[in-house]
Amino acid sequence: MQQLRLNPGADKRLRGGHVWIYSNEVNTKLTPLKQFTPGEQVVVESSSGKPLGLACVNPNSLICGRLVSRSVKIPLDRSLIVHRLNIALSLREACFDTPCYRLVFGDSDGLPGLVIDRFFDIFVVQISTAGMELLKEDIVAALEKVFKPQGILFRNDGKMRQTEGLESYTEVAFGEVPELVPFEENGVSFVAPVHKGQKTGWFYDHRLNRARMQQHVEGKRVLDLFSYIGGWGVQALAAGAEHVTCLDASEFALDISQENAVLNGGEERFTTIQGDAFDGCKMLLEEEEKFDVVIVDPPAFIQKRKDIRNGEQAYKRINQLAMRLVAKNGILISASCSMHLQRERLVDIIRSESRTLDRQAQIFDQGHQGGDHPVHPAIPETDYLKSYFVRLLPVT
Amino acid sequence: MQQLRLNPGADKRLRGGHVWIYSNEVNTKLTPLKQFTPGEQVVVESSSGKPLGLACVNPNSLICGRLVSRSVKIPLDRSLIVHRLNIALSLREACFDTPCYRLVFGDSDGLPGLVIDRFFDIFVVQISTAGMELLKEDIVAALEKVFKPQGILFRNDGKMRQTEGLESYTEVAFGEVPELVPFEENGVSFVAPVHKGQKTGWFYDHRLNRARMQQHVEGKRVLDLFSYIGGWGVQALAAGAEHVTCLDASEFALDISQENAVLNGGEERFTTIQGDAFDGCKMLLEEEEKFDVVIVDPPAFIQKRKDIRNGEQAYKRINQLAMRLVAKNGILISASCSMHLQRERLVDIIRSESRTLDRQAQIFDQGHQGGDHPVHPAIPETDYLKSYFVRLLPVT
Repeated sequence: MQQLRLNPGADKRLRGGHVWIYSNEVNTKLTPLKQFTPGEQVVVESSSGKPLGLACVNPNSLICGRLVSRSVKIPLDRSLIVHRLNIALSLREACFDTPCYRLVFGDSDGLPGLVIDRFFDIFVVQISTAGMELLKEDIVAALEKVFKPQGILFRNDGKMRQTEGLESYTEVAFGEVPELVPFEENGVSFVAPVHKGQKTGWFYDHRLNRARMQQHVEGKRVLDLFSYIGGWGVQALAAGAEHVTCLDASEFALDISQENAVLNGGEERFTTIQGDAFDGCKMLLEEEEKFDVVIVDPPAFIQKRKDIRNGEQAYKRINQLAMRLVAKNGILISASCSMHLQRERLVDIIRSESRTLDRQAQIFDQGHQGGDHPVHPAIPETDYLKSYFVRLLPVT
Repeated sequence: MQQLRLNPGADKRLRGGHVWIYSNEVNTKLTPLKQFTPGEQVVVESSSGKPLGLACVNPNSLICGRLVSRSVKIPLDRSLIVHRLNIALSLREACFDTPCYRLVFGDSDGLPGLVIDRFFDIFVVQISTAGMELLKEDIVAALEKVFKPQGILFRNDGKMRQTEGLESYTEVAFGEVPELVPFEENGVSFVAPVHKGQKTGWFYDHRLNRARMQQHVEGKRVLDLFSYIGGWGVQALAAGAEHVTCLDASEFALDISQENAVLNGGEERFTTIQGDAFDGCKMLLEEEEKFDVVIVDPPAFIQKRKDIRNGEQAYKRINQLAMRLVAKNGILISASCSMHLQRERLVDIIRSESRTLDRQAQIFDQGHQGGDHPVHPAIPETDYLKSYFVRLLPVT
């Protein structure tokens, strides 16, 4: 194995628990990055030559190395993947009764660049780094060893692959994977379009927040903005909402949300609206519609640090539109998956927009990603999801 | 009613939703603070004389005013207290099945300086401002009107009263209030020493976090540090822990934790240790004890901004001691009620102390105060509680 030598001081973050190496932290005189094949594993050394562990390198990426082991004797191979899958599995089994969850959440599970979502015996895998791409066969073999998969699907079409110099593709690597895969969340039945839907086909991260939503929707009129295939809306339906409206830009997603409503016997209380969420809200306002519970769970409006300003404006606008649709004493559930949107900023948006509308906001629940998306304490980027449950009262 | 004139620009925060007025924001030339009686209600005016609402003033306090109404026509009186109790009640009833909760959480419920904890039909009230002290009789009357109280107890012995120039006392204001008051949390039975215990006798704020703990303790050995009367420990016991050890400095609190263990039929699996938590941990370490789950829920180590540095050191020390007591693959539950300890700081303490011990920390749950402690979006101080559930793995 080749060595990768760090600049003085660059070992500090790694020793503190982090696992990323930036290209400007490498002593490129001693160990030029060009000499490495994308994805190969190397011995990372401090500036004085002390070994710190093994990392997958990618000379083409700003994050040019990701630590996979703190022992130079233990490379990331099939055997270590099996070990880490078992460790990841034990956490999910401690948290959830049903085998439907994010099984692997990248760095937080010691498998940088790898995401695996589990839908009973179907596994949908996303590889985003060159290091993991080299281990593709081992990942499949490890899944076969730890589980009895019915099928394994690679959804290797994420945005990050481009920066790692990887091509984009989707591939069934084992068994059979139907277009619509059944699963459960919080006891509610769903199907997910794992081949053609967003990301792996489903977002398990809001599970706990959706569970807590369930106690606030019985007999209520609910609006689910950016509904995708009905994660919030269909769970509201299953929890006894009087009526649920799902609004999404994608007809494809709405068709599946409809199927999910049918699965839970709620299609008569279920409506979909296809369209842009901002326009859709304006239309509903013109029609003087009101809802007891409005859910705002948009895609990441802030993808990169430079988008923070514009992104915050978008969160402001959509939260204000949503608040205007909330009936007297009703509830807004406002979420964000942008890691660049600080929690305090979203609270401040709730403050400012409710004041603008002369309503008194009370935040009575704050949510995070569930236990199948563990946070790595050294990597703030692994802690990205937030939700706020807000009661909107008249001002006295 | 007298007027209180603000300095230019000092209306901005109030217009933005906040309710506090600092003494340096008042135009004391036009409206000297000395002219006001502590607690009296006044019309707050912007620098140009525009009325902003009514506030209770206290010339002796740094926070010299607290807005109680945004309409100059609606003072805080018995009728408005009844109204706000009903609004507060509706939120608690939406969140909880059993009438045991914090009924009023000060500013967040539009009743600055007032806290009321409910234990079925017993109400324990804490007044911390001169404004509320003047309304004492109205608070009792309002509680009688909205509920059928069995008893109302004033625990007017909080630290903040001194800065408001109020004396310290405890008083039964209505009916009867036994020494030990029964109540439930997460379906578990307890008694609370409302006359002589800490604050109102109980801390409802960790309810949701304790509920989520329950799924991780079955058949496990659990250590509850700073246990008080067993909030975490006894709920772990009720959830099927193999054994629970409660450690607290107060023999009085431990005796009641023992009663609470008996109430739940778990006394044979229950041990108490009286002593300082730091010393107690060291003793357990010397005895080579290990626990599957260790709960660290200390009193606020950071009371004031100036204590941040020392307080963070104390959190570091206790978290490291606790981690050393966690068995392989065990769980640390680390909490803090210090509003001056930022969430990120506690995460960083978990990172640094786990690294020091060469263990890999995975945060799989993050908690907040429950819905009976709503957050006022303009007042960061109302958002004070945090908990982290951390799995401690061996490092590979």
